[in-house]
Amino acid sequence: MAKPLILVTNDDGINAPGIRKLVEIMHEIGDIVVVAPDSPQSGMGHAITINSTLHSSKITTEDSKTLEYSCSGTPADCVKLAINELMPRKPDLCVSGINHGSNSSINVIYSGTMSAAIEAGIEGVPAIGFSLLDYRWNANFNESKKFVKKITENALKNTIPNGVVLNVNIPSVKESEIKGIKVCRQAKASWVEEFDKRTNPFGQEYYWLTGKFINNDNSEDTDEWALKHNYISIVPVEFDLTAHYAIQELNGWNFK
Amino acid sequence: MAKPLILVTNDDGINAPGIRKLVEIMHEIGDIVVVAPDSPQSGMGHAITINSTLHSSKITTEDSKTLEYSCSGTPADCVKLAINELMPRKPDLCVSGINHGSNSSINVIYSGTMSAAIEAGIEGVPAIGFSLLDYRWNANFNESKKFVKKITENALKNTIPNGVVLNVNIPSVKESEIKGIKVCRQAKASWVEEFDKRTNPFGQEYYWLTGKFINNDNSEDTDEWALKHNYISIVPVEFDLTAHYAIQELNGWNFK
Repeated sequence: MAKPLILVTNDDGINAPGIRKLVEIMHEIGDIVVVAPDSPQSGMGHAITINSTLHSSKITTEDSKTLEYSCSGTPADCVKLAINELMPRKPDLCVSGINHGSNSSINVIYSGTMSAAIEAGIEGVPAIGFSLLDYRWNANFNESKKFVKKITENALKNTIPNGVVLNVNIPSVKESEIKGIKVCRQAKASWVEEFDKRTNPFGQEYYWLTGKFINNDNSEDTDEWALKHNYISIVPVEFDLTAHYAIQELNGWNFK
Repeated sequence: MAKPLILVTNDDGINAPGIRKLVEIMHEIGDIVVVAPDSPQSGMGHAITINSTLHSSKITTEDSKTLEYSCSGTPADCVKLAINELMPRKPDLCVSGINHGSNSSINVIYSGTMSAAIEAGIEGVPAIGFSLLDYRWNANFNESKKFVKKITENALKNTIPNGVVLNVNIPSVKESEIKGIKVCRQAKASWVEEFDKRTNPFGQEYYWLTGKFINNDNSEDTDEWALKHNYISIVPVEFDLTAHYAIQELNGWNFK
């Protein structure tokens, strides 16, 4: 059987340790092409470049088995360019990450990692975003290797449901401490912002965005519960944002 | 009864004609505060500024009845800063737009206008994004005024369902030609990208992202159908992205 063709991307930039580990794992599964941002793009959400130009460079890395391109755009740009311009054919799978830091719960909305996976899903390519709950550059990605491989192999074998991409989050513990893999729903948690207000040397005010993550949704079927209990969480994410359950209620409004 | 406090924002920038019209309309409904980007932010999706600073300036415009701030950040940043730092209290409503151009169907994913509304929704503030199907700077926003007011008054009176924000798109026709307002689902349409590849004066290749919008979902309950038939579309949009229907299928995968 022909090897699957896998697009590898991320939002931390093409040189981040997380994507290097993902490249290493995907080499054990298929033929891969890497198209990733030339600089970190965390928090870019689903931004795309529409009023500016995009550049991409074919690059050679120490990992010379791989066709790799760095791209000046956002994670969503990288996926569009990869699928429509750079890859020899439509890939069988797109994997994004491994992100340095969590994309569980409401973080999926702000996540460049997940926007890349969602963009692939929109283009009809099965896709998975992987994130490790350790934001540090030197986070230890080795402990998750077995599970990333297992989930990827399942996705290739079983087919991800249509209109869905997978949001995988991994607790930052030793492999032996990971209790298993749980399919979950997104916890109803959110950030409480705190703006750190400062004055620059010229007397003008500016802000740093900081905040606390607050989760009051302690149900056992959520990603937050799973991660807190050392399970890997998989949330099926859809890009049809329609709140179908709300349509009937809105039809009761008076627009005359 | 006290007037409602309304946050007005957008993604085309604080000086865009679309937000000026929205400010004019909202003055007829409540007390307003404007916090909007100091430059155009179209296609920014749900990007936020996490590795850089934010600036905001209190500005005076010809429309001097209004407290207005321009902000260096993305639309989502503007809403965070407005709610948590700049406004005297949590607003009763956030309206975003009126966008110059469509945010129907899959465009909701890339939309800065809708990311502002969604951010407000996440923070517990009822929110509506308005978009006119005319991307030109000198688009005619007058014809939609009556309907924008009607929808906003409904939202204040009836309460938007919890966890939902409204995505309103308006056909670019005369008021007399608008047939009414329809609550819809997001059509399953997408963009087929075409990258326009060029060479710069220094011999390096670069791309412009272009594309065609393709809709094969012609069902009468979609936003695309409504807009094509001169109805205003309202899609209830949720920020819990979980594809609940897919959880059972994924539980059948073998993760052992």
